[in-house]
Amino acid sequence: MTNEFVTIGEVLTYLKGITDLEERAKTLHGFVEVDNEYDRYLENGPATLMNVITEQSGEIKECVLWNVNHYLSLNRNKNVIEKATRALSQFGTGAGTSASSCGMTTLHKKIEQKISDMTGKESAVLFPTGFTANLGAISMLVGSKDLILFDRESHSSIINGIRLSNAKRTISFKHNDVADLEKKLTRYEDSFENIFVIVESAYSMSGDLAPLKEITNLKQQHKFYLYVDEAHTFGIYGDKGRGYCFEQGVSEKVDFIMSTLSKATASVGGFLAADKKYCSLLRFSDAYLFQACLTPVDAAVILAALEEIENNPSLITELHAKNTYMRNSLISKGFDLGTSKSPIIPVFIEDHNKLRLVVNDLYLVGVYSTPIVFPAVKMNQGRIRLIVNYNHSKEQIDYTVNALEEICRRHQVNTEEIKQLDMHRVM
Amino acid sequence: MTNEFVTIGEVLTYLKGITDLEERAKTLHGFVEVDNEYDRYLENGPATLMNVITEQSGEIKECVLWNVNHYLSLNRNKNVIEKATRALSQFGTGAGTSASSCGMTTLHKKIEQKISDMTGKESAVLFPTGFTANLGAISMLVGSKDLILFDRESHSSIINGIRLSNAKRTISFKHNDVADLEKKLTRYEDSFENIFVIVESAYSMSGDLAPLKEITNLKQQHKFYLYVDEAHTFGIYGDKGRGYCFEQGVSEKVDFIMSTLSKATASVGGFLAADKKYCSLLRFSDAYLFQACLTPVDAAVILAALEEIENNPSLITELHAKNTYMRNSLISKGFDLGTSKSPIIPVFIEDHNKLRLVVNDLYLVGVYSTPIVFPAVKMNQGRIRLIVNYNHSKEQIDYTVNALEEICRRHQVNTEEIKQLDMHRVM
Repeated sequence: MTNEFVTIGEVLTYLKGITDLEERAKTLHGFVEVDNEYDRYLENGPATLMNVITEQSGEIKECVLWNVNHYLSLNRNKNVIEKATRALSQFGTGAGTSASSCGMTTLHKKIEQKISDMTGKESAVLFPTGFTANLGAISMLVGSKDLILFDRESHSSIINGIRLSNAKRTISFKHNDVADLEKKLTRYEDSFENIFVIVESAYSMSGDLAPLKEITNLKQQHKFYLYVDEAHTFGIYGDKGRGYCFEQGVSEKVDFIMSTLSKATASVGGFLAADKKYCSLLRFSDAYLFQACLTPVDAAVILAALEEIENNPSLITELHAKNTYMRNSLISKGFDLGTSKSPIIPVFIEDHNKLRLVVNDLYLVGVYSTPIVFPAVKMNQGRIRLIVNYNHSKEQIDYTVNALEEICRRHQVNTEEIKQLDMHRVM
Repeated sequence: MTNEFVTIGEVLTYLKGITDLEERAKTLHGFVEVDNEYDRYLENGPATLMNVITEQSGEIKECVLWNVNHYLSLNRNKNVIEKATRALSQFGTGAGTSASSCGMTTLHKKIEQKISDMTGKESAVLFPTGFTANLGAISMLVGSKDLILFDRESHSSIINGIRLSNAKRTISFKHNDVADLEKKLTRYEDSFENIFVIVESAYSMSGDLAPLKEITNLKQQHKFYLYVDEAHTFGIYGDKGRGYCFEQGVSEKVDFIMSTLSKATASVGGFLAADKKYCSLLRFSDAYLFQACLTPVDAAVILAALEEIENNPSLITELHAKNTYMRNSLISKGFDLGTSKSPIIPVFIEDHNKLRLVVNDLYLVGVYSTPIVFPAVKMNQGRIRLIVNYNHSKEQIDYTVNALEEICRRHQVNTEEIKQLDMHRVM
């Protein structure tokens, strides 16, 4: 079978119908052994300019990177690295046990306090990763008589949290479509004990911002809990990075504010901020009880990053200025960026072969971003995702936009193909 | 209701019958606000002697710690900290994106190679946490026509991985009971496409080692995949820490070797080692695709720890010598340590009130370990868990054993109450 597949998406779709492990493993392995286009890694960690190494060939190529979610480039910030270094010497390397088994340190406690202050919530709970924050929180909050309504573009961690929950029913609504959400609230509100609405403030694959004001306004007519994942906005939206809920003035109407700490804050981890009573409950979720706590050094990085964000408002304003500059530049070249707004800029290329050619040609001229393909998005909704970082220079942006224009022209990627598509997250 | 509960286990059991979030949150919060015995943290990270801070009162007490899973004390090892410090400066702080989106560095690749070499498997896949390694691997490997047979004491991460899988059926077998496992293999082997047997090499709550030779011998008569979680043995059993499967000479018969990297290797993260074809499949699991990759500094810690383990065999032999010394000392005082063998020493105290009194009195004399209670173990199977570390001195061990003897006598904890109980992991 192996040789008949053209794209990894086709392989994964085929495998959905295969139950036997041997056939699934052999088919997929046979494909990726030949098609190693994604098996690349960074010589010395993320930066706007870094050597990219191709695993199979060993080829090393210096590239401008557009795949890094450290929006504020704080992973290379001198103060952050200094504080992390001091933490290593003072706290050692690991946490040694779970948070509930006394794995926290003064650093972890300070992060929870700081996040509580920033989000304006009574309390915050720290998890080892953003993925497991969603897993732990959603599975713990939702009861067996409840309904979950979630945006169709929701991240995998939300989907897995929903799967682990005891929800009586789970229904998706059209991406960012408040009318569809309201229709479903009206239809179902008398049939369940509670309704949980789960959205993201900015969507990772499309760069869309959520209509949070309109969604929270629905609370005037409908009773529901609102859960907002701020993975791509915490630290880079709102005064001193307090997030998009804060910027939109809706924090009080949002019951649960969640975010990863692996993006703007240049570390790893996740949190959920909410009323104290909910936070107490979350400290008994499996993901909290049974995972090793964040390492002290990763905690020190988060704290130091939050201090940098608080003390240097220009980090955020310059990031958004660069985002605007790059967007305007792309639009002036005829690229349709659809409804995207956040520093995630998607360039849609429907034809998978052309997408591969464009990504590969960009790599050849030293511009790197991983193509976004199935299962991250639906089949035939592939895209190049350009994530703007604070450290990207005007020259790097200009070089990338020009290269993209030339390469897209070479491969006859027309505006029909790079337009905004109607995307629905694959379930 | 709140005031009627005596133990947190009673609260959590009561909550299982409550569907509404408000009642669950208020009940639990009302209890923990008063009963804050577990809300403690470490001033400066784990070490054998460290200040323990009680959140609510702010009290600071210097204690010998017995709750730290860094068996080899490598979190305080000078070489490890030096290498981690260099990695911070060279690689920056975060990984910036998922492994599949080019978030890996040369450090991550070296870890995968090293683990593959150590376990004797063709390949290894690195996950951001041990919890999500089990989640990603189990949910990806098991097909919809398959049966999972798992030990009843299995860790929460295994249980959650099973829940996320498409397994047709999941059945537990009695803890470490090969006869019960064989009975179930015989009974079910014709009814499913594949059978997956999931065990741990050492169990986290009881310190029991698994009868791996007997379990692998079952492969002579029965067809099944064997999955072994080496969280509490990787790095501290087998030549140069190659694990308990290696020490028992059964690695080849174990299809999947998994471990966390948050214990012996003093960091965070997890891996699954297996044939290349299975590893290729696991790189498309949600936990791998959609989580930020391990930070470079945590990766550097793992690599440095593995180098220390390889270069200093005395780390492991001295750890086991200290484990033996403490066990003999406890046994000579009349404590029944049941079937435990690993450096996890459980002291069972069935009566919850006595368990609290003993733990609290130990704390007052500067000996700290969190009590293990429901939901980590069944109600009324509470215990004190003493985890032996390489850095524990003979004096710290003697002091702890003597304190434990005196305090148990004071509270009339008799041998009936500290005997090994028939434990079954709560589902």
